Amino acid sequence: MVDHRLRSAWTPDSAETAALPTKAVRWLTRRIGRLSPGAPPAPDSAFVVPPSRIPEKARAELVEVVGTDHVLEEAGERLGRTGGMSYLDLLRRRYPGGLLIPDTVVLPADPEQVQRVLDVCVAHDIGVVPFGGGTSVVGGVTALRGDKQAVVVLDLERLNRLVSVDPTSRLAVFQAGVRAPDAQRLLAVHGFTLGHVPQSYERATLGGFAATRSAGQASSGYGRFEDMVQGVRLATPSGEWRLGVAPASAAGPNLRALAVGSEGTLGVITEVTVRIRPLPERERYEGFVLDGWERATDAVRVLAQNGLLADITRVSDEDETEVSFALKGGLATTAVRRYLAARGITRPCLLILGWHDRAPQRKRALRILRAAGAVSLGRAPGEAWRHGRFAGPRQRDALLDLGVCVETLETATHWSGLGELYEKVRSALHAALDRPLVMCHVSHAYETGASLYFTVLAARDPHDPFGQWERAKQAASEAISENTRGTITHHHAVGLDHAPYLRAEIGDVGMAVLAAAKHATDPTGVLNPGKLGL
Amino acid sequence: MVDHRLRSAWTPDSAETAALPTKAVRWLTRRIGRLSPGAPPAPDSAFVVPPSRIPEKARAELVEVVGTDHVLEEAGERLGRTGGMSYLDLLRRRYPGGLLIPDTVVLPADPEQVQRVLDVCVAHDIGVVPFGGGTSVVGGVTALRGDKQAVVVLDLERLNRLVSVDPTSRLAVFQAGVRAPDAQRLLAVHGFTLGHVPQSYERATLGGFAATRSAGQASSGYGRFEDMVQGVRLATPSGEWRLGVAPASAAGPNLRALAVGSEGTLGVITEVTVRIRPLPERERYEGFVLDGWERATDAVRVLAQNGLLADITRVSDEDETEVSFALKGGLATTAVRRYLAARGITRPCLLILGWHDRAPQRKRALRILRAAGAVSLGRAPGEAWRHGRFAGPRQRDALLDLGVCVETLETATHWSGLGELYEKVRSALHAALDRPLVMCHVSHAYETGASLYFTVLAARDPHDPFGQWERAKQAASEAISENTRGTITHHHAVGLDHAPYLRAEIGDVGMAVLAAAKHATDPTGVLNPGKLGL
Repeated sequence: MVDHRLRSAWTPDSAETAALPTKAVRWLTRRIGRLSPGAPPAPDSAFVVPPSRIPEKARAELVEVVGTDHVLEEAGERLGRTGGMSYLDLLRRRYPGGLLIPDTVVLPADPEQVQRVLDVCVAHDIGVVPFGGGTSVVGGVTALRGDKQAVVVLDLERLNRLVSVDPTSRLAVFQAGVRAPDAQRLLAVHGFTLGHVPQSYERATLGGFAATRSAGQASSGYGRFEDMVQGVRLATPSGEWRLGVAPASAAGPNLRALAVGSEGTLGVITEVTVRIRPLPERERYEGFVLDGWERATDAVRVLAQNGLLADITRVSDEDETEVSFALKGGLATTAVRRYLAARGITRPCLLILGWHDRAPQRKRALRILRAAGAVSLGRAPGEAWRHGRFAGPRQRDALLDLGVCVETLETATHWSGLGELYEKVRSALHAALDRPLVMCHVSHAYETGASLYFTVLAARDPHDPFGQWERAKQAASEAISENTRGTITHHHAVGLDHAPYLRAEIGDVGMAVLAAAKHATDPTGVLNPGKLGL
Repeated sequence: MVDHRLRSAWTPDSAETAALPTKAVRWLTRRIGRLSPGAPPAPDSAFVVPPSRIPEKARAELVEVVGTDHVLEEAGERLGRTGGMSYLDLLRRRYPGGLLIPDTVVLPADPEQVQRVLDVCVAHDIGVVPFGGGTSVVGGVTALRGDKQAVVVLDLERLNRLVSVDPTSRLAVFQAGVRAPDAQRLLAVHGFTLGHVPQSYERATLGGFAATRSAGQASSGYGRFEDMVQGVRLATPSGEWRLGVAPASAAGPNLRALAVGSEGTLGVITEVTVRIRPLPERERYEGFVLDGWERATDAVRVLAQNGLLADITRVSDEDETEVSFALKGGLATTAVRRYLAARGITRPCLLILGWHDRAPQRKRALRILRAAGAVSLGRAPGEAWRHGRFAGPRQRDALLDLGVCVETLETATHWSGLGELYEKVRSALHAALDRPLVMCHVSHAYETGASLYFTVLAARDPHDPFGQWERAKQAASEAISENTRGTITHHHAVGLDHAPYLRAEIGDVGMAVLAAAKHATDPTGVLNPGKLGL
């Protein structure tokens, strides 16, 4: 059973805490201004948890399906599955009042029970929020009621099995509730890896990855999660739905691509069939510095267009590089700057490459980097990044304690528009916040374009902590959405937060098609009300 | 304007004819039995072309949109866009009677006119069959009326422009009616290639490739057409629909993947944005022989799973290899067989590799092939294949003249099921036909599986030429469909011929979702009636 207290912050019990060194805090204060700490996570008792609105008959039927131990209505259990992990979600746990608490938590044991739980919810017109790791940063698991009398969280944590492995075809079938580290562990026994390592790795589930079109840090080598998914099994109010019988097909539109990314609105993903790969024999992480954002992103473009991206390829802009240097210490010394300047680098942009085997490609990639004027920093920055690769969300808790407004947002566009989109989003954030620190990196590159991932830090406005970020997010989203070549989200998904911008991206016809597909699989609209604007 | 007479056979005027050498015919007769030639393509005058059923008012409105020269009702023009290029389509031109002839041909000039033509057809409840190269081999352009009073063919040949090229992002925007050779020519001016070379290359259009999820001979290097498509523009009865603002996105389900493969049932694709690549500097085609189908396909699997597929990778089974040798002559000599036998190869399976640059990968691939016992035949078989790569459909015309029943069909599955699916389909075809020659190759390989492409030759039954093939096709389709891991089509699409098998593959829920999407974009069902079972 999940410890609901974990939900008041990202940090799992098992993970090391990420307290910030005094030096870093001092540096940050200089950069973004005086901080007003306070508002620690509130205890459960600070929240008003209303009685569950699930009708008694529905509760009895749910108990009949999953057993009495797996229908939970205690305040702690419900608070433990309330909302996701966005900055605003975390704020709501520090400023009690705005939480949408589900009425009941239901924990089915297998795909068949998921189907039967849906049938009960349809019969009683109860909303259903599918719940995996609960790591959504876009309101994807917010327990909106919509027009329903009550809403249950359908927690998939008991669907935690590796169903089968086909080493010849390099395929594995997992139940949807398997968490990423467990998937890795289960596959490693067979000598395989999934290669999917998003920053939410420590908590997130395979079903969640599929539902949200996740992209991991190693997407340059292993692809996006949607590229790995070869099959899905869903429970829907219209019955079970299985897709994916072959590696490729022309049997009409690719409906698997419709189920993937549906964010729980079309069905509950209960199983995923994923492509797996042998565990790498050797991993090598290393750092380079290039001169200026344009040259740095251009080098990544050339790597991408020559098929020479490292499995992990991530390049930071000047501000993010400065922070890397400042927080890590050591490297930021005047000596290093002088060393780089002597090599023509006055606007350092840090490039991290992580190679899983693939030595021949590395050799050719290094030639391209040298031609672009890159200076190698050796393995240290690569290993440092690797060590801290999942620390971001945990550091956020520490920053929140300090009184920092901290959030990330992301987009993607084609190469020729990347510079303009970068400037537009940065400008919007700088205009919307007071003395913010806006950092950016490209961590997902393709032949035709790349993602932009922004991290924003500012001194939290203690008088309007929610409005402060809402306005900044809106400004950034409008900058993306008005740029007709940028997507509102490259891998965070739509949830509630991006729903207002979806129509601009997929058009009136696209919205009508989504609504129609929803009506076909979920005629009464019980599934994840409000998400994707549905 | 298209010369409708071309439609009585595949062979374009410009192409060399593909008469079969006497030696080959003699060999074939020995293999499949006595042939009863006859039934040459009938002249247009042999067909009863009923008067157009388009109401006068609708005709006038269509003329207003596209001009009087672009609304064609002459018998020849209508016959010229009647049906596609399947064996049964070709038979219908030799045994007049079964053609579904469209009422009118409309040729809009641009995407705006396509939209307005749709609006007229919706207003008058007239069916619309989008028409590119007309190369469908699954009944995808058959002019079914459905419940409509009349049906027009919407020929996209005037949408023949390269709209823009973005060399930095490696993107090109094409109008949908651009034929593949023209696309290549237009891109070559900019130093780029599309790399999409299906066997229908000489005729087919980019819009058609997108509508049918085409896969070209170089799919191992350049990907399937759906992988190349970064954006689409469609005209639909519900309004224009544009998709694709970024190289990747998590903005809900990938609706681009719903538009691609919709076979004209959800909208008329008017523009496609495709990823392009620099023209290769060097091309190298070569042949190898491996011992037996299992070892041969396994070698391709190992290449695929190590990222070492040649851009063109194609391996033939023993029967197809025998035919290659027999028809090409020379190689089939006893001396060659003795040469191969001395190297342990008694069941030769021909492997063709075509490399576009990528010398380092070739070197590593050759090591794998040597380990698998492959014997190199040098460049001659590779060049021979390359020379004849588009000849298949033309040879079919010559075979039809000789009285041969000749058709192809294809499927795909995961590696671990490939051998079983191969045997099942082969057995079904051998059981359904008298003394057939059933050949097979793998020409599209993936990490997790591969396609199987069957070519079937048999002596045509002059008394029941249609039923003979219909029964064989049904037997093969059932063998695929009952194997729960095979797709009914890897790249030929669904059209009419595969529609009965679609439900088994995508489920009741999938069919309901397709119908719902259709209702959203095309509420009155004017678009390509009957295709995809819609």
